[in-house]
Amino acid sequence: MMMNLITLKKIKQMINIPFCKPYLTNNEISYISTVLDKKKLSGNGDFTKKCHHLFNEYYGFKNCLLTSSCTDALEMAAILIDIHPGDEVIMPSYTFVSTANAFILRGAKILFVDSRKDSPGMDEDKIEELITSKTKAIVPVHYAGISCDMDKIMLIAKKYGLFVIEDAAQSIDSYYIDKNGNKSPLGSFGDLAAFSFHETKNIISGEGGMLVINNEEFKDRAEIIWEKGTNRSAFFRGEVNKYGWVDLGSSFLPSEITAAFLYAQLEQINKIQKRRLDIWNLYYERLSYLSSKFSIQTSFVPHYSTNNGHIFYIVCNTLNERTDLIDYLKQKGILAVFHYLSLHKSDYFEKLHDTRSLVQSDRYSDCLLRLPLYNDLELTDVNLICSEIINYFESKI
Amino acid sequence: MMMNLITLKKIKQMINIPFCKPYLTNNEISYISTVLDKKKLSGNGDFTKKCHHLFNEYYGFKNCLLTSSCTDALEMAAILIDIHPGDEVIMPSYTFVSTANAFILRGAKILFVDSRKDSPGMDEDKIEELITSKTKAIVPVHYAGISCDMDKIMLIAKKYGLFVIEDAAQSIDSYYIDKNGNKSPLGSFGDLAAFSFHETKNIISGEGGMLVINNEEFKDRAEIIWEKGTNRSAFFRGEVNKYGWVDLGSSFLPSEITAAFLYAQLEQINKIQKRRLDIWNLYYERLSYLSSKFSIQTSFVPHYSTNNGHIFYIVCNTLNERTDLIDYLKQKGILAVFHYLSLHKSDYFEKLHDTRSLVQSDRYSDCLLRLPLYNDLELTDVNLICSEIINYFESKI
Repeated sequence: MMMNLITLKKIKQMINIPFCKPYLTNNEISYISTVLDKKKLSGNGDFTKKCHHLFNEYYGFKNCLLTSSCTDALEMAAILIDIHPGDEVIMPSYTFVSTANAFILRGAKILFVDSRKDSPGMDEDKIEELITSKTKAIVPVHYAGISCDMDKIMLIAKKYGLFVIEDAAQSIDSYYIDKNGNKSPLGSFGDLAAFSFHETKNIISGEGGMLVINNEEFKDRAEIIWEKGTNRSAFFRGEVNKYGWVDLGSSFLPSEITAAFLYAQLEQINKIQKRRLDIWNLYYERLSYLSSKFSIQTSFVPHYSTNNGHIFYIVCNTLNERTDLIDYLKQKGILAVFHYLSLHKSDYFEKLHDTRSLVQSDRYSDCLLRLPLYNDLELTDVNLICSEIINYFESKI
Repeated sequence: MMMNLITLKKIKQMINIPFCKPYLTNNEISYISTVLDKKKLSGNGDFTKKCHHLFNEYYGFKNCLLTSSCTDALEMAAILIDIHPGDEVIMPSYTFVSTANAFILRGAKILFVDSRKDSPGMDEDKIEELITSKTKAIVPVHYAGISCDMDKIMLIAKKYGLFVIEDAAQSIDSYYIDKNGNKSPLGSFGDLAAFSFHETKNIISGEGGMLVINNEEFKDRAEIIWEKGTNRSAFFRGEVNKYGWVDLGSSFLPSEITAAFLYAQLEQINKIQKRRLDIWNLYYERLSYLSSKFSIQTSFVPHYSTNNGHIFYIVCNTLNERTDLIDYLKQKGILAVFHYLSLHKSDYFEKLHDTRSLVQSDRYSDCLLRLPLYNDLELTDVNLICSEIINYFESKI
């Protein structure tokens, strides 16, 4: 987020390997044409239902609702758990602004937790000390699709009677593995979970998201809030004989055009995921050398998580080193980019944050670097990128 | 909103003339393909900018931002004018739930105004009596694209220092005519105005909307709120050298896929509008007979408004008469539908409403009937519908 615009424009002209390139299955246009032929364009039509059905089939998400964005799904979650001014919500500082905004819009006070030393996810051992009588929810963010320690988080939530909202924006097709070796998909743990289908994600619809409702208590109200606070969906299922305004709500549902696009992607998720993992694994294999020789931290998958190939990152030792490496790679035509800036240090939140320093979050803000990862990236290019990174560190000895 | 599901399904099989059918220009798929070819799918890309440009060119909307829905545009407005718990907002009861929800989500108390006797728009003469020291905004809704008396409303707003947010959901390409005969587009009066491009509107994108920012004071912050509370847009224009979290916000921007669809429509707005007006005018011509012979109120365009052909309605004398007429038309294969239910009498709001009875709003809830109106409707069918309606009333003498 820190280069200036002229530099950015120049770079874009030079780059041979971009950071990200949306993948298309080539069925998107055909499915959108189907929507246009049927002339049912607004939300909650056939393709929306087909997407809901596949998410259930693939991941057992019995109750899910497509949304216009992951931000919208998080906002629905905040409304569903009845966030009111004064309520406190605990989440990592190293995350996207929407994780926090969604709850702040309902009046919540945010308590930011530091990241883990071994990965950018929130440090589960630092949650409990922030809990007060006002705490209402914990929002774990599965950074890079790598699971938080869900057993630990769910235990804390149970002990204090807190809601858990998973920010699963990056977590499609990733799993938590419990101590008995059983795998459960991310997004199936929290009372509610939010996914993103923004063009930068594994499965996309341009803009787009989804709310998964695991706590049955929220099922009916979720649908009402989704439909602008009306019981329209229940009416069309024949459960009520008229419909009207029954609750708060917004227009959270995406058009059928968006849903058709997403469905084309979702059908081919296995193919998409296989390719992303091939790329990720090659990075991991080649760059493990960095950690052994130069103590450079790279993407870490703990024993309790699978990996969905969403992000491969390395963590430099200093901000200067990262800036220098970004410049070096740019000169080679490779665009690698950093990620979040600690939210507790943002212009908006700095004045609202307590005085705790969040060392790891700041370290990832300064030092984490994401490498190019998209389906059309050639493995020869991955090898090239790895070689250049190794060259860079070798040349500094 | 009151027929049961089985009846509804049966009707759908029988109907020859639906109530609404989205119109396609046939450029939608081609423009969406362009977006896919460029692989820039998320919001605020070329087609979003092209839409903003055309809205400026057509209507002089210098500052406008596409949104995922009109609901989203209204929510942006509520955030922009800093609605807080305790603030009061005045709006008609005869409107869509989102008009109210957007402000309630920020904590506002809603004061509902009755409709006019001659049209479903809010009765401008009943606004002033509701103003208190807590009143923050007036939200006029231009029902059916017919303008409220904007001189009257703007004068009241000025007198009491209130914001005006136009709910222009139905009002694209409609104008207010001042006492000197000067025409200004609806959406150009309020500090802010919200438009809808839902599939039921004149110009569509499945789901979709737009916020128009007329009060320059809100220009910069609107863009920030639109971009999830970050100054990302300013960064990409080179106005700041880094970007981050600076304010509240959400993900209000639609994908480029949605924007491309809208652009295809917007290019052909003159053709679309001409056809809708031809249909509307034929209804008006044929059904004026109803008002002269049976004192049946029909769509009314006051001297200070143009008409954008969005809705043609008639107002029956009683709920029973309307139900009977709907059934009669159904038997002839014609689907005519009612519209809003007074919000002050909804399950959600009834307990929050003061005791004022809003007679006209209730009358339109019970008696207003919208007739089929879409671009592909044949004028012979319009004649047929009119004849059937006249037959119905003649047969009751």
